[in-house]
Amino acid sequence: MHSGQLSINQATAETSGTDDLAVACRAAGIDQVSLWRHKYLGQDPARTAATLRGHGLRVSSLCRGGFFTGTRPEQEAYEDNRRAIEEAVILGSPILVLVCGPAVGGDIAAAESAIRRGIERILPAAGDAGVTLAVEPFHPMFLAERSAVVTLAQAHRLLDDLTDPALALAIDTYHVWWDPALQAGLDRAAGRIAAVHVADWLVPTPSMLAGRGLPGDGVIPLGDLLTRIEATGFTGPVEVEVLNPDVWARPVAEVTADVRDRMARLW
Amino acid sequence: MHSGQLSINQATAETSGTDDLAVACRAAGIDQVSLWRHKYLGQDPARTAATLRGHGLRVSSLCRGGFFTGTRPEQEAYEDNRRAIEEAVILGSPILVLVCGPAVGGDIAAAESAIRRGIERILPAAGDAGVTLAVEPFHPMFLAERSAVVTLAQAHRLLDDLTDPALALAIDTYHVWWDPALQAGLDRAAGRIAAVHVADWLVPTPSMLAGRGLPGDGVIPLGDLLTRIEATGFTGPVEVEVLNPDVWARPVAEVTADVRDRMARLW
Repeated sequence: MHSGQLSINQATAETSGTDDLAVACRAAGIDQVSLWRHKYLGQDPARTAATLRGHGLRVSSLCRGGFFTGTRPEQEAYEDNRRAIEEAVILGSPILVLVCGPAVGGDIAAAESAIRRGIERILPAAGDAGVTLAVEPFHPMFLAERSAVVTLAQAHRLLDDLTDPALALAIDTYHVWWDPALQAGLDRAAGRIAAVHVADWLVPTPSMLAGRGLPGDGVIPLGDLLTRIEATGFTGPVEVEVLNPDVWARPVAEVTADVRDRMARLW
Repeated sequence: MHSGQLSINQATAETSGTDDLAVACRAAGIDQVSLWRHKYLGQDPARTAATLRGHGLRVSSLCRGGFFTGTRPEQEAYEDNRRAIEEAVILGSPILVLVCGPAVGGDIAAAESAIRRGIERILPAAGDAGVTLAVEPFHPMFLAERSAVVTLAQAHRLLDDLTDPALALAIDTYHVWWDPALQAGLDRAAGRIAAVHVADWLVPTPSMLAGRGLPGDGVIPLGDLLTRIEATGFTGPVEVEVLNPDVWARPVAEVTADVRDRMARLW
């Protein structure tokens, strides 16, 4: 595949401040970051936006909206997602990534219904704001804790049903690589993929949530997978998102340079 | 659902000897066990069979054959599966459960081919011996370490392609409950399910391999799921298989009685 745009997802630098991450990205020649809402400087998206602009950085996406299921009332989920969309606007982020919410108590059907209702309700605000909502299918092992949307086929169904130009897909290699129906899902993803996350699958896997690998350290054929994603017409930034305490423990400037070099080898 | 047959899968008592497990099963009124090959008394299936018969126990299935992929040569996998079939005959087990083998290096297509070849080659021996090979789809999180067959749809494809009466399915609630296509897979499973394993999904999940829950301790709607499995016509024993060090640490007679009571509440 061609040498695409690179973005660092902030979860790769969970223990660093957003200002340090910005400096490290620029030092590595990376001009895009994907932010997490709990990492705003001074808990202030406007101040964060100004700092990133000062470093010449763009925000490729914001993580995360969603969580339409679970213990919080639907109205609270709605208001939180409204705020996330407003923050995306302040940050200049074209995309808000949705982690849809778990199947609480194992009730998958109820979760799917709540997710559909929640997205449908928030879509007009996203459209008005010019922010694309990107449904991210999660690995099935997160069904009961993070997302009842665990396959690309499920995410497609949401897009099919809600038919709104502000609704799209986020594809994370760590979450989807196992799926025997992955290529079938990619075959119908033309024009639908808004965001791409990259992490590798380590063997053995040290932890479900934070046992992800830097590109090349695991077993996912990432170069091949990115080529297949690009074949759908996707030309946006690839966001490297590696939740792993071993990565977090390294100096952030070393990590950003390492990620840049690893992705150059993949491309 | 009706009060079905109950079997204890030996993985629920990993740290107990097979003789102790037999005594504990009888004390709990359970007359079937599902054995693991590494737990034979004196590493001798004939001695193990005699001991179990002495306690009035039947063997519902043997775990495990398979591992047609991976580092060992295909001939070695073949011979090992031949031995497993012979052991199943000695033990009077009608079923050998297949854990098909991982996608080594992340190559899913190569793994699927090796699995198909491996099963095809061993099927005549299984048929001659009167032992049913039960393909067990594993949770996708085990793709790179245990099985490249991670959905019921994939397992069905193997049965469709190989069309042999000695090839069937093993359904484990822990491995399949997340699948949005599960009901579609059950809808075409009539006459195909040879074995059913039960474990619950704990939240949070303490470990991928050995973080499973006793029935009722997790979030899987097990009663509902067993009813749906039974609706396919399955009338065989339900094998409770809970890999969990907290369960292993308890006296085995307490565990077998607990399992019996929990399953009685589900049924």
